Parts: sequence; C-alpha cells; structure tokens
Amino acid sequence: MNNRNTLLNELQEKINYKFKNIEFLNTSVTHSSYAKQKNNIKYNERLEFLGDSVLQLTITEYLFVNFKNKKEGELTKIRALIVCENSLYEVALKFDLGKYLLMSKGEEQTGGRERVSILADTVEALIAAIYLDQGLNPSKNFILNNFDEIITKSLNNKIILDYKTRLQELIQKNSNKEITYKLVKHEGPPHKRKFYVKVLVNEIEFGNGYGYSKKEAEKQAAKEALRRYENGE
Amino acid sequence: MNNRNTLLNELQEKINYKFKNIEFLNTSVTHSSYAKQKNNIKYNERLEFLGDSVLQLTITEYLFVNFKNKKEGELTKIRALIVCENSLYEVALKFDLGKYLLMSKGEEQTGGRERVSILADTVEALIAAIYLDQGLNPSKNFILNNFDEIITKSLNNKIILDYKTRLQELIQKNSNKEITYKLVKHEGPPHKRKFYVKVLVNEIEFGNGYGYSKKEAEKQAAKEALRRYENGE
Repeated sequence: MNNRNTLLNELQEKINYKFKNIEFLNTSVTHSSYAKQKNNIKYNERLEFLGDSVLQLTITEYLFVNFKNKKEGELTKIRALIVCENSLYEVALKFDLGKYLLMSKGEEQTGGRERVSILADTVEALIAAIYLDQGLNPSKNFILNNFDEIITKSLNNKIILDYKTRLQELIQKNSNKEITYKLVKHEGPPHKRKFYVKVLVNEIEFGNGYGYSKKEAEKQAAKEALRRYENGE
Repeated sequence: MNNRNTLLNELQEKINYKFKNIEFLNTSVTHSSYAKQKNNIKYNERLEFLGDSVLQLTITEYLFVNFKNKKEGELTKIRALIVCENSLYEVALKFDLGKYLLMSKGEEQTGGRERVSILADTVEALIAAIYLDQGLNPSKNFILNNFDEIITKSLNNKIILDYKTRLQELIQKNSNKEITYKLVKHEGPPHKRKFYVKVLVNEIEFGNGYGYSKKEAEKQAAKEALRRYENGE
C-alpha cells in the first residue's frame, strides 16, 4: 500500500466513514493548485459547489424538524450562523484536514495547508464526496455528527468566532488585560514573505505564530495563546 | 368528499404525485393570511424554507452531473438563472396553483391568488411537501420534470423574463413598434385601490389587465398581449 492510500485510510477512520469508491475521497482532498500541475486530475472545486447544497439542506431540515415553533425568518438567521466559513474551518481542524491535502509546492510554501478558506472548502468537498458515494443519509449523518457543537452554539446565538476574537472575549471576560500583537521579524522575498508574530497579554508573551501574511501570523499566535490560556498555563 | 378534498385530488393529478399524507399538500397550499384567522392551522411559510434547499440541491446536482467540464463559477451563474422567483412563478402558472390556495378574503381581494411572490413561494412549499412525504427522490423527479424548459432556457443563457420584458423583446425583435401602457381607471378606497391598465402596440390595443398596483395591472395586460401576439391574433 503506497503512502497516499495509507493517508486516505487514516482519514476514513478519523471521519468514521468508509468509501465504496475511494476516488471521491481522493478528489475531495485534492486542491486545484496540485491538479493544475498534472493533466486530467480531478480536484475539489466542483465538489465544494455540490457539498455546500447538501450541507444547506441538512441543516435546514434539522432546524425545520426540531424547531416547529420558530418562523422562517428566525430559522434563516440561525442557519447563517451554522453554515459559514468559520464553522467549516472548525470541522477541518478536528480532522487535521490540511495534512491530507494534495497541493502544489508553491501553495504549500505560502501556508496553504493552514489557510482557512482552503480548509473550509475541503470540508464542503468531503461532504459532497460522501453524498456521491452513498447518497443523502450518510452525508447527513456525517454533517450532524460533526456540526453538533456548532449547532448548539449557534442556537445559543453564539457565532463561531475566529481565534483573535475568541481570545479577546475570553481575556476581557475575566479581566481588563490588554492584548497586543507584535511583529517579531519577517523573512524571504516580497512575493513569499513569511511573518513572525507574538501575542502579549499585559506585556506577557502568550503565543507565537507565523504565516504568509501578518493576519495569518496573528491568527496562529492567537490560536496558541487560546490553547495555553484554556489549559491554565 | 368535501370540496377541499376534491380540489386537493385535482391538484395531485395535475402534479402527477400522490401523497401518502395529504396534510403535507394541504399545508403547502395554505397561505399565512388564512392561518392567522384560524387557530393552530399550519401554513406554508416554513415549508418554503425547506423546499428552497431541496430545489437548490436538486439543481446543483443536476448541473454537477451533466456539465463535467464547467467550473464552479459558471455553474453558480447558471444555477442563479434557474433558481429564481420568475422560474418558480412559471411552474405555479402551469398548475394554476392560485386556484388551490387557502387565503384570507382580504388577501384574495387584493389579488393574492395572482401575486408572483405568493405563487413562487407556494411552489417551494409544494417541493418540501413531497420531500417530507416520501423523501429526496420523488421531490427531485418533480423538480426535474417541471423545470426542464427553464433549465434549457437557462443553459442557453436566457433569463426567465417577466411578461413586460418578454412582450418588449418579442415585439422589438420583429419591428420597431412602440409599446405603451395606459391607465384606464382606478376604483375603490386608497388602501384597496384597483387599477385598470391597457397596453397598446403602435396605438392599437393588445391587452387589458387589472391589479392592486399599477405594476401588477401592467403585468397582467402584458400577459394578455403576449398570448394574443403569440397566437397571431
């Protein structure tokens, strides 16, 4: 068994779904940048288009069935909190989807494996892969199993926040400490510049991050700080 | 068998689908204005919410499967031409859905049975009714059977146009005749004013219409003119 198959099997175990046709899974974790280097390789962009609709229907039906007293307008608002890039990104992190992505060296070197939009799109593609493999019911199960926390938060009207906002809320809930992001250094040529950032809470360092934009580096620093803060370090 | 049941049976025959649970059909053709007069009567607004997602998924999958060489962006554009109020309205007219709607007297007196938005919403509700009754496949069949012309037009990049635009395009394709809409009269109190309009093609009367807004009356006049024009009258 080659390395690619080992990885795909590992991913199947993680998501708790066994594909009849493993090619669907393989396509769902193939980024366009990789396909463009090869000929006739399928990639996940069209799958995203389909997966988004499967996700919409599943969440819509869930809300329709479980909230018989809520009106259309309210249900639409709740759905928008659930079906969004941040939620999809949460699911991607759960399975460390970046690890399984086939992408070009260039995309990888500019942080593609950690990019929110790429990871969120991959979750949609994965949903479509399950739908094409065995239909609506298994894809519904996959969605409802993995969006359960997100649904609960959204029903409590809590938006799935990005790391920086979450860190800010957490720290400011308990204190009036100040959060600062500082650029430590950058390296590499302008078109491929890597930024290193640290986040300070009342001048004490809480996390470090890097990325191919300051925004991405700050996000990574916030992620590390959040983890440390939540673990009481 | 009471009158309501006779009507619902007639509708079932028209749409070529027999409900296991006729209550789904009944709810799908019950407008909120009717339900508000009764207690605990279900109406079609929540069904629209669900039906819209079933329609989106069906059209998305159709495009995904049939156009393997089109990219996500192009498919999204085509889908927007197919899934829109005007298309849904076309389907409603095919079944004369207005006839089957339960609505309040007030709504009826202000042209509710002919209103584009109400009829379009009812088609979405009908799709959800079939979905809840027997699942995704029968609702897919209903959609694909009834949206076939709309899909064909959209693939040829022809938007499903409203009557006034369609009349204009038809007449100006063959000639440079001038189209004019004239208000003939209006009647009734300000909050329930009925407008009568005629449409003239080069000063010759081609259609009449009325409605509870000038816009609605013009649309109805254009509809009659289109019919006469297409029949060569």
